[in-house]
Order: sequence, then structure tokens, then C-alpha cells
Amino acid sequence: MTETSSGTVGVIGLGAMGTGMARRLLGAGFAVQGFDVRPDAASALAAEGATAAASPAAAGQGAGLLLVMVVNAAQAEAVLFGPDGAIPSLAPNAVVILSCTVPAAAARALGERVAAAGHLLLDAPVSGGTVGADGGSLTFMASGAPAAFANAEAALAAMAGKVYRLGDEPGIGSTVKAVNQLLAGVHLATAAEAMAFGTRAGADPQTLYEVISNSAGNSWMFENRMAHVLAGDYTPLSAVDIFVKDLGLVLDTARATKFPLPLSATAHQMFMQASTAGHGREDDSAVIKIFPGITLPAAI
Amino acid sequence: MTETSSGTVGVIGLGAMGTGMARRLLGAGFAVQGFDVRPDAASALAAEGATAAASPAAAGQGAGLLLVMVVNAAQAEAVLFGPDGAIPSLAPNAVVILSCTVPAAAARALGERVAAAGHLLLDAPVSGGTVGADGGSLTFMASGAPAAFANAEAALAAMAGKVYRLGDEPGIGSTVKAVNQLLAGVHLATAAEAMAFGTRAGADPQTLYEVISNSAGNSWMFENRMAHVLAGDYTPLSAVDIFVKDLGLVLDTARATKFPLPLSATAHQMFMQASTAGHGREDDSAVIKIFPGITLPAAI
Repeated sequence: MTETSSGTVGVIGLGAMGTGMARRLLGAGFAVQGFDVRPDAASALAAEGATAAASPAAAGQGAGLLLVMVVNAAQAEAVLFGPDGAIPSLAPNAVVILSCTVPAAAARALGERVAAAGHLLLDAPVSGGTVGADGGSLTFMASGAPAAFANAEAALAAMAGKVYRLGDEPGIGSTVKAVNQLLAGVHLATAAEAMAFGTRAGADPQTLYEVISNSAGNSWMFENRMAHVLAGDYTPLSAVDIFVKDLGLVLDTARATKFPLPLSATAHQMFMQASTAGHGREDDSAVIKIFPGITLPAAI
Repeated sequence: MTETSSGTVGVIGLGAMGTGMARRLLGAGFAVQGFDVRPDAASALAAEGATAAASPAAAGQGAGLLLVMVVNAAQAEAVLFGPDGAIPSLAPNAVVILSCTVPAAAARALGERVAAAGHLLLDAPVSGGTVGADGGSLTFMASGAPAAFANAEAALAAMAGKVYRLGDEPGIGSTVKAVNQLLAGVHLATAAEAMAFGTRAGADPQTLYEVISNSAGNSWMFENRMAHVLAGDYTPLSAVDIFVKDLGLVLDTARATKFPLPLSATAHQMFMQASTAGHGREDDSAVIKIFPGITLPAAI
């Protein structure tokens, strides 16, 4: 494979995650061409040194790397292969870094189409949220051809705290990400259930938090998200509706092979209950609000 | 309160946990009077310097402290207040350290009866398993009168890595322990579900373990118990049937106030499924065996 013009990176999808990642690329010296369906987002990034692109094709123009951080697989397909899609305008032998959460089957299918167009796809979903995106400390769960890893190395280094190389084919990265989302989603719903139960039984929530954080009942999500509940702060760092989507994706994947996921299915129902009750755009820790008969800590 | 003869400790219930705790007391210089329904257990402990007691009453004879580490609340009531029970033979102003997992309501009721008999009850369930019992690194989640804590201090120090003082009344300790068991049980069942799902989707179990252990999907139970699954080693450190019991206790407690626990109820069904399929006395990580269509790692 010839050397690509990896100095220019197209970034498509400038939400909280994509904008943070684009800033890290700018900081590492890459020329960034940013596109979002909301032109304001690209303008804001342009004020920090990027080029505002008016279409996915413009974002990809002559770029050796293309970071895709849109909402789902349908959007990823559209910005790559739809009208004004980015694929035809990329530099030869470019690498598409697909970092949004998509089904493994979608990552595999997009990988084949990208390869047919003469480029490589890195199936590279991330964990770490907006804090990780802003700080360049994301965990990438990535799979794809060695050449794709090689060409994307400097860009990944600018955005990542840790890059897991999980295999040579797209699909494995998204599978591992799905397992992580399954665990994170069920753990959050479980944390809510446990705190609600303990509060109902008369325990002090702050004391519960301290004891559990140092016991066998702890999880990363308990420790992280129950702090929001104790502070009474439901400002969305990641919203309830994200887990409605991500656990739904996990369940769809499992259903395709008729594989049973009893806890994931139950937790998904709890997030949907929270969403329909009006909490869909609050912080995902607001899933605790589905429990009746308890008084939650007020905002500090 | 007058000084008690705290040099003598009765220990009732010499299973893996109780024996480990009794050894720690012996090592700290306490005179230990041990009783178990299996006389062999008391004889074994006598060979290490304890006195083998032939009844709960004999274990409590003249003791300023009584550690109760039996299976459940019914057994605790029987060894304290039943025929040949320990309460009448204790030294004046003794402290009963109730360390088995019981419903909070049972801890409160026993506390009242112990107080009426002129003694104090420390509601002091533990976390940390046989490793913690043997090593003197248990976490105590304890509540009771300040005088009970004061008199039990040296004994607790011999057995504990950490003692949480959660309040002045029996019941709070058991409530916090129930919350911990809820989380630990659901997290273990979730870990099994996630590993089964990932394996089914084609991910390598060892790689999954490494990535998840360092991601937002991690839990204490995932990290600890999925190591058993990877090693194919279901030697029971804590058995499937313990979670059948403990999650059942959590659900009974919640049902008493009609409080819904959707994830705990689902996880309880999964442990019962594992138990009825013949895995009840295997390590609790054997709950993963309920998932069909996957090949688990073989014993190393």
C-alpha cells in the first residue's frame, strides 16, 4: 500500500463526541475538514482552525483519513455512500475510522463496500464519553486490516488513551463494544434498582454509596453514575435515550441468532419506561426515577 | 456498661467462613469455644487450640463475645434462644456479633430479644468470602449500640480489613449487606450473559475479559468470577445456591413492602435455572452454563 496523505482528516458528525475528537486531531497538527447536518457545529469548529465542509463529500475531499462519528449505521451509510457521500472524494487508499456504535453486521457490510471502493475501514467504536473525547483518553475497541491501523496510528494516538487491536476484520470491534454496552447498561439499571431498594429500606444513600464503592457489589457504572444521583444532577453527560438505543441494538443482534438475553431485555424495558415517563433526554442515571415510593436526593 | 470478660469468644457455625474467622480470633489471643452441628468441625478447630463445645450453650458459657455465623435467621434464632441456646450462659453484658446474612427485620427482632436478655447485638454481616475470612480482611457492614462496637473492637480488628459503622441500631447493617448482595448477584448473572453473548458473536473470551476489565462495562464480580470461567474451574468458592438464597432474601424483603426489583427477580430466575440444571453446588460463575449454543473454555 502506498503512503496516504494522512495530514488531512475529514470528520463527519460534530456532536459532543465528534467535536471533542476533532479538536484533538487539530491539536495534533492534522488539517481537519468538519461536516455536520447542523452547519453551526462546523462553523464553531472552523473558529478553532478547522475547515467547515458543506457536505460529506467536501469533508472527504483529498483526505487520507475520514472519522465517522454519526448516530447510527444508517447515517454512516448515508454519509459514505449516499448523495454527496464522502467515499468518491477521498484520497487514494484512504482509511475510514468508523467510531459510532453500530451492529457488527453493519460494520462488516460497510467494510466490504469501503474495500470495494479502494479504501480500508477500521471498525473502531469508542468508550469513555465526552470526558474521554475532550481529553484524548478514549478507549478504542478496533478491528481491521494492519494497513488501516498503520495509516490511522497518529490520528488514533491523538484521540486515545488505549487502542485495543481486536482482529484483522471489521465486525469484531463492534461486537466487543456491544458486550461493553450490554454490561454498562445493565449495571446502570442495577445500580438504580439497588440504590432505590436501599433507600426504601431506610439506608442513607451517601453511606450506601461509600460502602458499595468499596465492596464486591461495585461496578464502574455504579461508582460513576450514582454520584450524579447523590448530587441530584441529571444534566445529560449521556442520556437515557442512548441506552434505549444501545441496548436495543444489543437485543437486535442477539435476536438475529435467537440468543436469549434476559437481563438486557429487562434493563431495556426500564430505560424505555424512564424515557416514556419524560426522562429520555436527562442523564442516564435518571433511570432511577422509575422507582416509586422513594425520595431521591435533591440538587445540591 | 461494665467491662466484659471479652477474652473468651463463643463461635457458633464452623463452616468455611466461621472456621476462618475463629482461627483469626485464636491468632489474636482470644480463648475460642466453638460449636457446630457437625461435631467434626469443632474437633478440627480444637486441634488448633480452641475448645470444642457440645452445644450452643457450651459455646456461650461465660463468654463476653459470641460470634454467630450460621446459615440463616432461623438457625441464628435457634442457637441463641432455642433449647440449649447460648443466651442464658453468656457473661453479663455480652455482645452477640451476628455475621450471617439475615433479613434486616430479623436482625432488628433478634436485637430486641438480645437486649431484653441484658446483652447487646451487633448486626454485622460481612463481605469478602472465605479468602477474607482466612486472611482477616473481611468487610463488616455493622450497626448497633456504641457499647457493642467498643466491646467487640478487638475481635472485629482480628477478622476485618474494614469495619463500616452504619448506625446505632441493628437492621441497618443487614440492609446494606442486602444491597451489596443484590448488586453482586445481578452483576454476576450479567457478566455471564455478556460473556455468553460475546462468545456467541465470535469474540475471543480472553480478549473480551481483558477489554471489559479496563472499560466502563467492568464490575468487581465480572473481573473476579469471569476469571473462573476462562480457567474452566467451577470449584465452589461460593456456590450457585448461595445466590439462590441471598437474592431470594432480597426479593422477600422487597416484597414485604411491595417494592419492585425487576433485575433482581430476573437474575434470581437465572440462578434457579442453573441450580435445577444440576449446578447448584458448583462455583456461582457456573450460572453461565444456562446459556445454550456456546462452547465454554475447558479446564486448563
